[in-house]
Amino acid sequence: MQASGAESHGNMIGAQDRGAVPMVELWRGNLCESLHYGHAVVVDTTGQIVEAWGNPQAVIYPRSSCKMVQALPLLESGAADAAGLSPKQLALACASHNGAAIHSEAVTSWLGEMGMGEADLRCGPQEPADIPARDALIRAGESPCQIHNNCSGKHAGFLTLNRHLGGGSEYTEFDHPVQQASLQAFEEVTGEAIRGWGVDGCSAPNFSTSLLGLARAMGRFAGAREGQGLRESAQARLTQAMMTYPEMVAGETRACTDLMRAMNGQAAIKTGAEAVFVAILPGKGLGIALKVLDGTTRASEAAIAALLVKYGVLDPAHPAAKERLNPELRSRRGLLAGEIRVADGFA
Amino acid sequence: MQASGAESHGNMIGAQDRGAVPMVELWRGNLCESLHYGHAVVVDTTGQIVEAWGNPQAVIYPRSSCKMVQALPLLESGAADAAGLSPKQLALACASHNGAAIHSEAVTSWLGEMGMGEADLRCGPQEPADIPARDALIRAGESPCQIHNNCSGKHAGFLTLNRHLGGGSEYTEFDHPVQQASLQAFEEVTGEAIRGWGVDGCSAPNFSTSLLGLARAMGRFAGAREGQGLRESAQARLTQAMMTYPEMVAGETRACTDLMRAMNGQAAIKTGAEAVFVAILPGKGLGIALKVLDGTTRASEAAIAALLVKYGVLDPAHPAAKERLNPELRSRRGLLAGEIRVADGFA
Repeated sequence: MQASGAESHGNMIGAQDRGAVPMVELWRGNLCESLHYGHAVVVDTTGQIVEAWGNPQAVIYPRSSCKMVQALPLLESGAADAAGLSPKQLALACASHNGAAIHSEAVTSWLGEMGMGEADLRCGPQEPADIPARDALIRAGESPCQIHNNCSGKHAGFLTLNRHLGGGSEYTEFDHPVQQASLQAFEEVTGEAIRGWGVDGCSAPNFSTSLLGLARAMGRFAGAREGQGLRESAQARLTQAMMTYPEMVAGETRACTDLMRAMNGQAAIKTGAEAVFVAILPGKGLGIALKVLDGTTRASEAAIAALLVKYGVLDPAHPAAKERLNPELRSRRGLLAGEIRVADGFA
Repeated sequence: MQASGAESHGNMIGAQDRGAVPMVELWRGNLCESLHYGHAVVVDTTGQIVEAWGNPQAVIYPRSSCKMVQALPLLESGAADAAGLSPKQLALACASHNGAAIHSEAVTSWLGEMGMGEADLRCGPQEPADIPARDALIRAGESPCQIHNNCSGKHAGFLTLNRHLGGGSEYTEFDHPVQQASLQAFEEVTGEAIRGWGVDGCSAPNFSTSLLGLARAMGRFAGAREGQGLRESAQARLTQAMMTYPEMVAGETRACTDLMRAMNGQAAIKTGAEAVFVAILPGKGLGIALKVLDGTTRASEAAIAALLVKYGVLDPAHPAAKERLNPELRSRRGLLAGEIRVADGFA
């Protein structure tokens, strides 16, 4: 504030973000045009902090980044094996997919195997992010349905578990046995009681946790191996399914798919709405979680790519890495206008 | 940082944002899930600060928020009157439009009046944000063209000015007479030399300024009346055109259009990419400019709505105001999930 006599409002940074740090910058010409703050934490398989930026105790919603946690009861209950689910279906249960044909066909088949259909889902309709699928619907004059919802694989998993448990049809309600099983697994792997819960975009409960709790859960997944125990086997199978079928976890052009392909079995990663990103590094024995304060995906993608490079599982020269770490901004006529950069001091 | 022995990175807030303050929050359940920082400043018609949040000296790109400044040479040169441009066309010259039929038809006619066509534009193609227009293109199997670009009205204005000045065809180049005229007007109304320039999404130069400079420009527009002088007449005509034809400035469902309709001639407002927003309040003699640090539009819309309410030109009970100030977040099945709120201490 320069002018005298004017009403002034001071710098209140720190009151609500409790220490977020600059993570990602957008540069245009010679100016940093926009700036993203956030928190990130890397832990080992025992949950000990290896490195952190900002405040690991920041309380967040994992949103879709915790789908592999939500899928644990599906395996641990025996429901997945009773239904004969394939690793590809397990990957889809952990997905935020594009609604491309490969996803909607797989969910349709899965529901059919249970004698169920689109009307049994409770995720709500969503226009596919996949452009060919979107355009095909528009040309056919059809509306998107619940199968196109990016969470429909998770919900097919919920329905499979629900059939096994014999619960009622409203499986997204907080008190429903499916969600209570999810809650129990969530608290066990984060090592914390939840701080509350909110309604996710797909209408299922989403549980809040510290960022450290979410990283701790990813660390446990990273340390788990098949045959160690019920929990560890489930974790290892889900991690392996995500790494084996990266196209089922998101879709073409998406960060999760592109980066998992580039890392070729060295990490399973998952995005969540409002700029959450997690990574499971089984070979390194590390779990990672980050949250960009303002919820912007371009920043969470750049930040997770930077951490994957730093921890030696992503080659920064790979085109999929470059596209997230340091993408060019171009005008609609193709002129170079700027770039996204990871902030000095982060990763 | 809690753990001992771990590598820690301290809080660097303040190093780059120089004092941005919390402006807008996203709440889900009982938790503030995401948070947006920014800068805002309100000035009178002489450019004196009336009120400010964060740092009015923050250097920004106005992006499309300064289209009424870029249109000044079109009027002041006599080109607009020589071409017989209507107030509706002047509003379109200041627009970031949806590419709806009313916009593309108006730009097509305008180019036709000059004996020109789509190929004379230099803004590049863009898929219409207007859903009916987008779907019509997809059903017809057609690609979006430059007329659909949200800036095509501004570029039709550039072409009109260029014809008057007799410049070459590459009117978006920095050294071109059209852009040099724009630069001169920009420096005069902001009261500052530019700090540099970048390539905008439409390939035209975008000049950087302090946020205070941008607000000062809006204050001058707010104080201008027809008949006072060449500059003031041009400013008053552009402000009036925007307020009279809000549907030409953006389009259905868009904040600029909805809020200008709600304010019914009390303010002209304009958004810019990366979360800039400006307002011209002729009746109050005030100019406003704000920038959300992270570039998120939901936050700049909530913030400008809050300032318009505070300065008495927007009724907070109007549905268009409520939709920006405090919109509900709902799941894809329609369940209430949370809301956007203006942060305590802002506006």
